[in-house]
Amino acid sequence: MDATTTRVDRFDGAIAAMEAAIGAEHVLTRDLEDHCDPFAPEGDWYRPGAVLMPKSVEEVQAILRIANEHDTPVWASSQGRNKGYGGGAPRVSGTFVLSLRRMNRVLEVDEENCVALVEPGVRFFDLYDHLRQTGSKLWMSVPDLGGGSVIGNSLEHGLGYTPIGDHFGQHCGMEVVLPDGEILRTGMGGMANPHNWLIYPHSCGPSWDGIFSQSNFGVVTKMGVSLFPAPEVYAPGWFTLGDEAQFGAFLDVLRPMMIDGTIPNQPMITNAVCAASAFGERKPWYDGTDAIPEEVLDRIAATPGFGRWVMRFALYGDAPVVAHNRAKITAALGAIPSGAVTFDQFDGRDLPELTNPHHRVQAGIPSMALDQMTRWYGGEEGGHIGFSCAMPISGKDGTAIRDLARGLLNERGLDYSAAIIVGKRSMVHVALVVFDTKNEAQTRDAYAATKAMLEPAAKLGYGEYRSHLDFMDEVAALYDFNNNAQRRFAERIKDCLDPNGILSPGKQGIWPARLRQDPA
Amino acid sequence: MDATTTRVDRFDGAIAAMEAAIGAEHVLTRDLEDHCDPFAPEGDWYRPGAVLMPKSVEEVQAILRIANEHDTPVWASSQGRNKGYGGGAPRVSGTFVLSLRRMNRVLEVDEENCVALVEPGVRFFDLYDHLRQTGSKLWMSVPDLGGGSVIGNSLEHGLGYTPIGDHFGQHCGMEVVLPDGEILRTGMGGMANPHNWLIYPHSCGPSWDGIFSQSNFGVVTKMGVSLFPAPEVYAPGWFTLGDEAQFGAFLDVLRPMMIDGTIPNQPMITNAVCAASAFGERKPWYDGTDAIPEEVLDRIAATPGFGRWVMRFALYGDAPVVAHNRAKITAALGAIPSGAVTFDQFDGRDLPELTNPHHRVQAGIPSMALDQMTRWYGGEEGGHIGFSCAMPISGKDGTAIRDLARGLLNERGLDYSAAIIVGKRSMVHVALVVFDTKNEAQTRDAYAATKAMLEPAAKLGYGEYRSHLDFMDEVAALYDFNNNAQRRFAERIKDCLDPNGILSPGKQGIWPARLRQDPA
Repeated sequence: MDATTTRVDRFDGAIAAMEAAIGAEHVLTRDLEDHCDPFAPEGDWYRPGAVLMPKSVEEVQAILRIANEHDTPVWASSQGRNKGYGGGAPRVSGTFVLSLRRMNRVLEVDEENCVALVEPGVRFFDLYDHLRQTGSKLWMSVPDLGGGSVIGNSLEHGLGYTPIGDHFGQHCGMEVVLPDGEILRTGMGGMANPHNWLIYPHSCGPSWDGIFSQSNFGVVTKMGVSLFPAPEVYAPGWFTLGDEAQFGAFLDVLRPMMIDGTIPNQPMITNAVCAASAFGERKPWYDGTDAIPEEVLDRIAATPGFGRWVMRFALYGDAPVVAHNRAKITAALGAIPSGAVTFDQFDGRDLPELTNPHHRVQAGIPSMALDQMTRWYGGEEGGHIGFSCAMPISGKDGTAIRDLARGLLNERGLDYSAAIIVGKRSMVHVALVVFDTKNEAQTRDAYAATKAMLEPAAKLGYGEYRSHLDFMDEVAALYDFNNNAQRRFAERIKDCLDPNGILSPGKQGIWPARLRQDPA
Repeated sequence: MDATTTRVDRFDGAIAAMEAAIGAEHVLTRDLEDHCDPFAPEGDWYRPGAVLMPKSVEEVQAILRIANEHDTPVWASSQGRNKGYGGGAPRVSGTFVLSLRRMNRVLEVDEENCVALVEPGVRFFDLYDHLRQTGSKLWMSVPDLGGGSVIGNSLEHGLGYTPIGDHFGQHCGMEVVLPDGEILRTGMGGMANPHNWLIYPHSCGPSWDGIFSQSNFGVVTKMGVSLFPAPEVYAPGWFTLGDEAQFGAFLDVLRPMMIDGTIPNQPMITNAVCAASAFGERKPWYDGTDAIPEEVLDRIAATPGFGRWVMRFALYGDAPVVAHNRAKITAALGAIPSGAVTFDQFDGRDLPELTNPHHRVQAGIPSMALDQMTRWYGGEEGGHIGFSCAMPISGKDGTAIRDLARGLLNERGLDYSAAIIVGKRSMVHVALVVFDTKNEAQTRDAYAATKAMLEPAAKLGYGEYRSHLDFMDEVAALYDFNNNAQRRFAERIKDCLDPNGILSPGKQGIWPARLRQDPA
């Protein structure tokens, strides 16, 4: 394009080409709310200029080629339902969003090898429905809210709560459209006719998959995902801890049972505020405008089923193995002062209708029930953003991040709502900053409070595992080893693969060369 | 450099600079046999011009900078003990080998989180000795031969036989010196002072680690590796199968027990030739120059402890869990006609001295005992190369690759020796082509026979998971989806990161631009 062409002219020219390529009805230019940050404060805040809804890989290729020709960036999004991190909104307002929602086919379910091949528009609900409708015996893994994309969640390093809850770690094989429209398949998909694409994760040569996660180097159009066989027994459990002072001791008892697999899934540990928010609003507990006081937390903690901290987790497997591990866990966690362990138990191969949303999510059944959490401050318009960093499963680390997040939030009058997702050797502490989106001051303060936690956490050695759109640059800057070697390396790769800088500029702080000095 | 400078002049100039940078005594120019393909046929076959032995990251940086200045490639190698794939030899004869053997420190063992940070010269033996000498209670994972580099094995997607036997999948965090001498740390190492580098595998942004495996994009100078707690019970088991016709049925019974974790480690299945070769030479069984006949295989199979196929595997964990899984496995595999299951059992926390090398390797104790296998054709100078492809754990796939490899080897008069390493959802079938290195005709025929299997296997849909130096180009060519998209993508990244093409040219078929048309 002529360098003097204005951005608006370029965009208008591109719109016409996009309409010709994918059909005018699939180029949306109004009513784009569903492709914005769902919890945005009022005002000019990351809004698409138009949304492109391709149906096929060929249409994705065409879109990227047009974007290169017209010099108009596109922000790729699978479903755009990572609501606490900005949804499907682009970092550069007024640009295209490439939404993959219409590419929603479950292409294959391999019952023997317990894997599936899906497109990026497939939501957890869609995959679940497909499995049940086709009579599959397999279970899947889901995050707390089932409306998101299976692929999108995995690419963002999202987490689930089954034994295959490390969703990115459990994927196998990708098809990627590169910024220039070329198609790359990773792993054994590098062969024209592989018999092993979805079961062996590498090829012979470099393993590429990781670079297409949390990046702007390609559009993932297919991915292999793990499923798992229905267990003989499914035993979801609860651990409640009444005494805040035992929080560190609890984590130190938990760690070895995660590492040795006694607890095979990814537990979630919530504090009193977070646990209470799953069941109802704040007002019955406390109506002050300051942060919820200690004595109210103790009142919540004293309610049956609650605690200062509560952990949900689950066992899966043969009955004698589950029985052994139930007893082992009950003995270990039950020995912690103020701790109590309870279990339910179900026939995994003939599962009854589960009503408890926590039981559902740990059985890989999608749900939207936990969206309730965002309504803590009242009304239907609650929002949340996540401050989410990774650390060892340890009392020392857990109490350090708790004290940091609680202190910074409480001094701004915000409640400290924490959900800790526990993996085999690490845990992700999410401070779930909840607010009423109709309260602009509270909304803006929530974003500011979340940003304020980043640097103190980094000083303690804890990096974010994921970031809201609004502070991707700040998070990237905190990866500061060797003069931000990771960002500089990402920029080299970005310039190599996307010289025109058309794909998702600014994603995770990776800007193309021309926008690097003067972002947006 | 002046473009008219000859390669020899450049090399001589570089030698002087290298000597100045790392000390003349660490630039080896003679007696380089230990850095060549250990099983090479006679003649001009992948030989270094000199070997560089740095002691520190700074020296690695200096070497790469000199290599760029002098336009002299260096072939990086951790220990160079991947003996069946070419050892530490470079693809371009006469160039530098960068051997990391002197960088051999165990930098950290984290007993709580069960991880270690090591340098690339650390051998499995070294890490094991370190753990025992420091009183660590942790177990590690090892491949069959313990003389190799922990990092090198992991980077080549090497496999071990414990529950953490997927060595690359079980690493966490890398330090890499890029071709231009810059240092990149992956994952949480992207922060200057991380508290989570070795326990959480990603950062916030793209995950880079995979691109430094089986590649020539950087020199890995540190890596986090997983360890695991000593189990209460360690129960190594054997399954022997007398009837070749039941081989497929066996794999189909095995698959669900791998996927659901009943068998938690990575079993190895060997055929009669391979199993016999671990115990002694071929001559007592058969002295013909043709492939070993069926009736001799049956005679081997009838020997106590042997079979047409034999699988070693192991259970680890609490006594009641191991007891349950022992019974379950015995029932399932024991029901296969001609199948028999046996177990040994040890106190994992007070392990006796294990004498059986198979028991040792599955307990993560390094050994060289299985080097015996290469002596099948007699003498101390046996060699082997691996034809190694990945496929589902299934009777259909297992019999297809068996028939292909057996047919192609037998028609050349070579025995079919097979070792199948089984993972959670895939298995790697290694046709271990064994030969007497003093028999040049047999040696050359072994290399030719291995190459001859590549294309027929790819036609069936099975790609190599790893490749000998001598046929990296052929293997890369078989990854032919979209006009070899993987290789073309690797070349783009190569040109971006290593524009002078100085690091390990030709590794996995990835050549720098100037060597792409006319390799070597």
